[in-house]
Amino acid sequence: MDPRTGLPTVGMVGAGQLARMTHSAAIPLGLSLRVLAGSADDGAALVAADIEIGDHTSLDDLRRFAKGCDVVTWDHEHVPNAHVAALAAEGFDVQPGADALRFAQDKTLMRSRLTAMGVPCPQWADLDATEDRSAALASFGDRVGWPVVLKAARDGYDGKGVWVVDSVDDAAEVLGSDTPLLVEEKVVIAHELAAQVARTPSGALAAWPVVETVQCDGICVEVIAPAPDLAPATASAATDLASRIASELGVTGVLAVELFETTDGRVLVNELAMRPHNSGHWTIEGSRTSQFEQHLRAVLDWPLGSTEETAPVTVMVNVLAGDDDPARPALTDRMCSTLATFADAKVHLYGKGWRPGRKVGHVTVTGDDLDTVRGRARAAAQLLVDGDRSVATPNRGNE
Amino acid sequence: MDPRTGLPTVGMVGAGQLARMTHSAAIPLGLSLRVLAGSADDGAALVAADIEIGDHTSLDDLRRFAKGCDVVTWDHEHVPNAHVAALAAEGFDVQPGADALRFAQDKTLMRSRLTAMGVPCPQWADLDATEDRSAALASFGDRVGWPVVLKAARDGYDGKGVWVVDSVDDAAEVLGSDTPLLVEEKVVIAHELAAQVARTPSGALAAWPVVETVQCDGICVEVIAPAPDLAPATASAATDLASRIASELGVTGVLAVELFETTDGRVLVNELAMRPHNSGHWTIEGSRTSQFEQHLRAVLDWPLGSTEETAPVTVMVNVLAGDDDPARPALTDRMCSTLATFADAKVHLYGKGWRPGRKVGHVTVTGDDLDTVRGRARAAAQLLVDGDRSVATPNRGNE
Repeated sequence: MDPRTGLPTVGMVGAGQLARMTHSAAIPLGLSLRVLAGSADDGAALVAADIEIGDHTSLDDLRRFAKGCDVVTWDHEHVPNAHVAALAAEGFDVQPGADALRFAQDKTLMRSRLTAMGVPCPQWADLDATEDRSAALASFGDRVGWPVVLKAARDGYDGKGVWVVDSVDDAAEVLGSDTPLLVEEKVVIAHELAAQVARTPSGALAAWPVVETVQCDGICVEVIAPAPDLAPATASAATDLASRIASELGVTGVLAVELFETTDGRVLVNELAMRPHNSGHWTIEGSRTSQFEQHLRAVLDWPLGSTEETAPVTVMVNVLAGDDDPARPALTDRMCSTLATFADAKVHLYGKGWRPGRKVGHVTVTGDDLDTVRGRARAAAQLLVDGDRSVATPNRGNE
Repeated sequence: MDPRTGLPTVGMVGAGQLARMTHSAAIPLGLSLRVLAGSADDGAALVAADIEIGDHTSLDDLRRFAKGCDVVTWDHEHVPNAHVAALAAEGFDVQPGADALRFAQDKTLMRSRLTAMGVPCPQWADLDATEDRSAALASFGDRVGWPVVLKAARDGYDGKGVWVVDSVDDAAEVLGSDTPLLVEEKVVIAHELAAQVARTPSGALAAWPVVETVQCDGICVEVIAPAPDLAPATASAATDLASRIASELGVTGVLAVELFETTDGRVLVNELAMRPHNSGHWTIEGSRTSQFEQHLRAVLDWPLGSTEETAPVTVMVNVLAGDDDPARPALTDRMCSTLATFADAKVHLYGKGWRPGRKVGHVTVTGDDLDTVRGRARAAAQLLVDGDRSVATPNRGNE
């Protein structure tokens, strides 16, 4: 407990935008997030008072950090699972714990466990279960049909660690590496969905409505809440699935279950994330309780908040830094153009450098009509990236 | 500009709950509020990364603080006006500036100026305009009728510096002090209202709907947005009045105009505040743009955000620390009781010690029905103060 406030101290390992937004949500609750940052320039380190600089792969650093915390949680999945277990063994309260977190850290473990639970997944095989990965891949591809999707079992994100291959030859380089691999059927996707729930150590659950996520080059670019044109029975089944996974795996905090809705009507689990997730950023404005507030309440074993929507439609569009372009107006000018044109858009910037392709922020618009809301959110995000060059290059003014 | 983010640095002098909530609003905008705090334990100092400890009455401290800021603004009115002017003379961008701020710092100046503008105010007199304050008070009281309201011209807040007196004798102690004084008629109040606007240095204005504020012992305890049963013409006139005051006084940032609606149908200005204000806390959930975000945008001369309401009714209830009571459950337990009972209530705690009577937080509920929303907000705030003692004292369980 922090004697200054009479309230517990939550520590988050990792200082990216998730920790940054979690800190923002901590403030009204009377809390101040304690953050383990790799660098003083990390997004959360720029805004939170209680920052420890350290390495999330060092057990010593983790232990030193945890000593100031009533509960420790995670901004990402990259803390070695053995370290998470070690902290718990030493008496620290870590949420989610190692036994749950491993299913978000290792895709092979996740697929094994979900398959054993009878949860629908794409057909898959662990290439490292046999001596000959090439033969296993050939056998799998010939059985389910090429192309197939090769995945690194660990450390993939935003399309990294994923390879669509047409043949064993096509996979030669990856197969020759020492990366643990699994292979999955390449399903034909009608929509990508995400079902998000929060669960407390005591077992209380709260679910947000299922959303549609739109991906481009493996990166989430847009989230629509609730998922449009989703059959109520499908939505309900997806929510039940996420709740069941959270309970059976012992997840605490926020769980995001990424789902494929296939053209042949199946709903299959793609990935699990045990933390606030890009698919839940819409909840800051679109839900009574944001995923960041709910994650804090959940890991503290506090009562969960209402997940009622605040508007019929919410659309979140990621802001991906464009290519470097010396003619682009300065960020402040782009921000002002965006705010001036879209007075109803809520802009979120993460305090990160604008490296090409990097997620540097997002824009959320709420409203009644999907097309209007989506159009405004997209246009606002685009304007934030490009700026208004109408003054410098008048011919572009009417684009 | 902060080279790490490419965005300007806003500094706020004072580190109370207003700075704390402003910091929370700064984070999504990509900013990190720089705060001049009297103590490292101040509410905003507990949560913001960029804290300078210093004395807001010291020009040296203010100057040192301002050097790191692109614009400097205020969490309270207690910075000496001459210091505000001195900072501007030295080239610092201070918003609002000294010429506007003095009307929020000195009630006699404010009354003089508003009267000259033809703005309706209670009848009033500057007791220091004559040699004999007692005679001036006697003359005023006999003319407008006793009792009258004596006010310290400066440094009053939350009912402090205000005395209702029945006679000159009743006022003897205050008259004998060296406090600059004005006197006002004691109007018969039907409702207290607040009209809040934001104005940029470029002159852009945005207004929130007029709210009703409920006071107890001179302290605001509750705010209802929009003000119920307010005639549209009265609401519109109040908003126009606030906009006109902001423009003519050159206010930048948020201006709150506290108003009396009298039983004889007049709407009179009570006080001015040139900063985020308790009457605007409801905007965090109840408006597309909170007063804290809008204040930042305004002082930066950025485009202002939409002030559209997010729900038909929003009620904000202040959490005032009750008397010390050893039997009261711990804050964490009270927080959990409140969150468990009112899943839709948004609790805001300020990180302050619970000294009796002190404003330590607030609770906001939004919805469709005033009575329901108000009842829930009040009950949630009460539960946060008292806690649920049903376990310890079963006989109280059905209260």
